[in-house]
Amino acid sequence: MLFDVLSDTVGPLNVFRDGDIQPQYFSDQSFGCSGAFDILVKPASVEEVSGVVRLCNEYNVPVTPRGGGTGVTGGAIPARRGIVLSLERLNRVISIDKRNRYAIVESGTITKDFCSMVEQHGMYFPVNPGSMAKSFIGGNIAENAAGIRSCAYGTFVEFVMNLEVVLPSGEIIWTGANVHKNATGFNLTKLFVGSEGVLGIITKAVIKILPKPAVNKVLVISFMSLAEACRAVLDLSMISPVACAVELVTRSAIELAAPFLPANYPFLATDPEAFLILEWEGSSNAAIESAITSAFDVLDKIGTVRVFVAKTAEEADLIWSIRRVMGDAMVSDNWVYRDIDAVVPPSALHEYLGMLDVIKLKYGVRLICFGHAMDGNLHTMLLLSRDKIALEGDIIDPVLSEIYTAAVQLGGTISGEHGIGSLQQAYLPIQFNEKRLDIMRRIKVAFDPLNILNPGKLMLDS
Amino acid sequence: MLFDVLSDTVGPLNVFRDGDIQPQYFSDQSFGCSGAFDILVKPASVEEVSGVVRLCNEYNVPVTPRGGGTGVTGGAIPARRGIVLSLERLNRVISIDKRNRYAIVESGTITKDFCSMVEQHGMYFPVNPGSMAKSFIGGNIAENAAGIRSCAYGTFVEFVMNLEVVLPSGEIIWTGANVHKNATGFNLTKLFVGSEGVLGIITKAVIKILPKPAVNKVLVISFMSLAEACRAVLDLSMISPVACAVELVTRSAIELAAPFLPANYPFLATDPEAFLILEWEGSSNAAIESAITSAFDVLDKIGTVRVFVAKTAEEADLIWSIRRVMGDAMVSDNWVYRDIDAVVPPSALHEYLGMLDVIKLKYGVRLICFGHAMDGNLHTMLLLSRDKIALEGDIIDPVLSEIYTAAVQLGGTISGEHGIGSLQQAYLPIQFNEKRLDIMRRIKVAFDPLNILNPGKLMLDS
Repeated sequence: MLFDVLSDTVGPLNVFRDGDIQPQYFSDQSFGCSGAFDILVKPASVEEVSGVVRLCNEYNVPVTPRGGGTGVTGGAIPARRGIVLSLERLNRVISIDKRNRYAIVESGTITKDFCSMVEQHGMYFPVNPGSMAKSFIGGNIAENAAGIRSCAYGTFVEFVMNLEVVLPSGEIIWTGANVHKNATGFNLTKLFVGSEGVLGIITKAVIKILPKPAVNKVLVISFMSLAEACRAVLDLSMISPVACAVELVTRSAIELAAPFLPANYPFLATDPEAFLILEWEGSSNAAIESAITSAFDVLDKIGTVRVFVAKTAEEADLIWSIRRVMGDAMVSDNWVYRDIDAVVPPSALHEYLGMLDVIKLKYGVRLICFGHAMDGNLHTMLLLSRDKIALEGDIIDPVLSEIYTAAVQLGGTISGEHGIGSLQQAYLPIQFNEKRLDIMRRIKVAFDPLNILNPGKLMLDS
Repeated sequence: MLFDVLSDTVGPLNVFRDGDIQPQYFSDQSFGCSGAFDILVKPASVEEVSGVVRLCNEYNVPVTPRGGGTGVTGGAIPARRGIVLSLERLNRVISIDKRNRYAIVESGTITKDFCSMVEQHGMYFPVNPGSMAKSFIGGNIAENAAGIRSCAYGTFVEFVMNLEVVLPSGEIIWTGANVHKNATGFNLTKLFVGSEGVLGIITKAVIKILPKPAVNKVLVISFMSLAEACRAVLDLSMISPVACAVELVTRSAIELAAPFLPANYPFLATDPEAFLILEWEGSSNAAIESAITSAFDVLDKIGTVRVFVAKTAEEADLIWSIRRVMGDAMVSDNWVYRDIDAVVPPSALHEYLGMLDVIKLKYGVRLICFGHAMDGNLHTMLLLSRDKIALEGDIIDPVLSEIYTAAVQLGGTISGEHGIGSLQQAYLPIQFNEKRLDIMRRIKVAFDPLNILNPGKLMLDS
C-alpha cells in the first residue's frame, strides 16, 4: 500500500524493495554497521521529497535520508527499518553567482563535482573532506564535514548561507536568505548544519564561494621528537596569513604508510618521529613567501627539524601522497579500522597523544594518529585484524570510551567532523550532561514530534 | 516578596525598584522605544543569574536581559514589565589563550575593552560593531552584531566557539566546547548567536581570536555615478586577499556629513555621487600592495573615479572620519532617525538604491544611505524632525514596510546586524511564511515553555 503511493509520488522506477535493492544501500563506510529497511525511494525534486516525507508521516514510517554513503558513524543507516530516501537524483549545480559570491546546489551533488564546477567559474570552495570524491554536499552539511583546509577557512558551518529543507511534516522552508549577513530570527541555517538528518531533509544549499587564490606552496617538516612537532603546531599557528593546512603525521602513521610511499619521500630514511605538512594559499608569491620566512624563523627556534619546500606541483603532490596512501595502508594486511575524530585544544595535543599511548599499551591495540593538528582534530585509527574481529571486538568500546574521556577532560569534544550518528551516541554522556541532552531532545520534538526522521541517532529517542 | 528573595540572591545593593532605578534602564538606542518594568537586578556571577532566573520561573515573572543598552530594535526593553536583568557586573575577561586562539569573556564586558585586551596580548578580534565603545559582548552575540570588517572576517556567529548560558529554568549549560571544530550534536552555540535573549541568558563566551595582521592600508574612491560605485563593489569583491572593509557612502550621506568633516576631506569639493572606502589588512606590505594594484586595475576599467590612498595613519583616520561624524550629523538640526539595516545581494545594490529613491519621493521623507556595501548591508536612515514627529510618525510604518518588501523581493533580508526585537517584528511576515515562524515558536517553547525570557519579541508570542 505505502509502496504503491510512493510509486505514484516518485514514479515506479524509483521505488525499490526486497531483492531489488542494491546491497550498498544497506551500509556506508561506518565500521561494522549495517541496517535493514523496507523500501528505497529516489525522488528527483524537492516536491517529490516532500511527497515522500508527507506519506511517511501519514503512515508513521521512519525515513532515513541518504547521501553518498561515505559516513563513518552510521548516520545514513536505518536504525528502525522503514524507508531510505536517497538524494542521489537531486544532483544539479543550479547556479554559480560570482558577483554575489555564492553557489546554489542540490544536496545530492557530489562535493568534488561541485568544487570543480566552482573552479571552472574562477571561484573557490575550500572545504574539502577526504570523502569528497563520493560524498554529497547534503551529507557533508548534515555532518558539518571539514578536511585539511579548515584551519584557515573553517568547516561547512561557516560556508552555508541558506538551506532549502523538507520538514518532517513534508512542508518546505528556506532557513535563511541568500546574503552574507543575517540577523533576522533564529539561525536555523547553522542549526541544520551538523543536525545529521534528524530535523529535516536538506534539498538545496546556498554556499559561500571565494575568489580563487592564485598561488600555493607546500612544505613538509620532519621532527625527531613529537614534543617539538606539537610545539611547532602552536608556534606556526601564530603566523599571518594562516596556513590553510597544518597536518600532523605521527610515527605510527608514518610506519604504516611507508611501504606505500614513493622511495623519494622526503626524510623517510631518517626515521622521523613526526611529519608536519603545511600549505599556504595566497594572492601572490610575495604574500606566501613572507609566511614561509616566518615559518623558518619559528622552526629555527625549535630544534632538530628538517624542512623540504616543494618547488613544483609534482613535489607538492609527493608531499601530500602520505595522506593519500593512508586509506589503502589502513586496510592492508587484513586490517579494518575504526576512525576516532575527537578534538582537543591544540595546546593539549602532546598530552593527548601521551594519553593515547597509555591506552594503546593498556589494551594492546594498534592506534594510528594523523590529521588536522592546528584544529586539534587528529584522526585516531583503531586498527583491528579482520580475522580476529570477533575476539577483539569487545575491546572497542572501552578503548573508545577512554579516548573520548581523555579528549573531553582536556577540554575537547567527541567529534570534529564525523558526527555522532548511531556509532558514537553511547559516548555522548561523556561530554553532555542530562540537561544538555534534554535540550537536544526538545529541539528534535519541536521539529519532528512523531520521530519520523532518522530515528535512533544522537541519543534523541533513547 | 519577590523583591526580598531577589535581594537574598544578589545582595540588597544590587536590586532596585520604583524611583531607585536610573532612567537609562528604561530605554536603549531604539527609536522612540521605552518600557516599564518592576525590578532591576544586577547579578555578579552565573550562579546569581541562575538564581534570579529560577525565581522568575517560580513566580512566573518575565525577565529581560540587558547588555550595554545600545540596541536599536528594542531587544533590551521589557515588553511585559517584570524584571530587567543587567549583565553589567559580569564584566571580566577571564583568559586570553594565544596558543589555542581563543579568549573567554563574561558577557557584560564592553566589546571595545575586550578588543583592546586581546590586542594587548598581540592577538586580534576583528568584528567591531559601531556601538563597541558601549555595547557588551553578550549583547553583540545576542544580536549577531557585525560592523565594517565583516566582509573579510564574518560576523559574531563565525567567531563564537562556545557559550555558557542560563536557561529559562535556571539551569546552566555550555553550548559547545572550546575547540575550533565541532560535529558533536546540534550546534546550540550558533543557535544562541542572534537569538536576542529569548532562549537563554548568555553569561560567558569563548571567542576565536586571530594573529594580528601587521599592516593595513586605507583608501577612498570618489565616483561621479552611483551605478559605477555599485559596479566597483562587485568587481573589487573579486580581489584576493579580500578587503576587510568596503563601505559605501552615497550622496545623501555625504551631504549630511559634509558640514562635520575636516575641510581637507578628499574630493569633497568635486561634488561626488558616492564614496567607497576600502581597507586591507595583511601580514606584509607586499601582500597588500598586490591587492591595491588589482584594485587600480579594476577601477581603471570603470570610468570617472578618483582615488586617494592614505600614506599615514592620520590620513587613514581622515578618510574614516566620514563614518565617525555620521552619528552627530544624523541628530543635528533637530533630526531623529530610524536605522534600517536590510540586506540585499550585492549585485542588487544599485536597483535597491533606486527603489529607496522611489520610496523617498513617494513619502517625501529623507533617507540617508551608507554602509557595508560588499555585504549588501546598507544602513538606511529615515530622518524625521523631532518637532514634527507626532505629525510624521504615521509614515514610518509604510516607509519601513516598503523598504523591507523591496529588500526581500531582491532576495535579501530584513536585518543584517540589528536583529528584530520588538521594533521590527511586525515586518517579519514580509520574509517568513507562517511555517517558518511556527518553527521559531516551537524552538522557543522547547527552551522556554513558560515564556519567561524576554517575552514580546520576534513575534514569538503574538
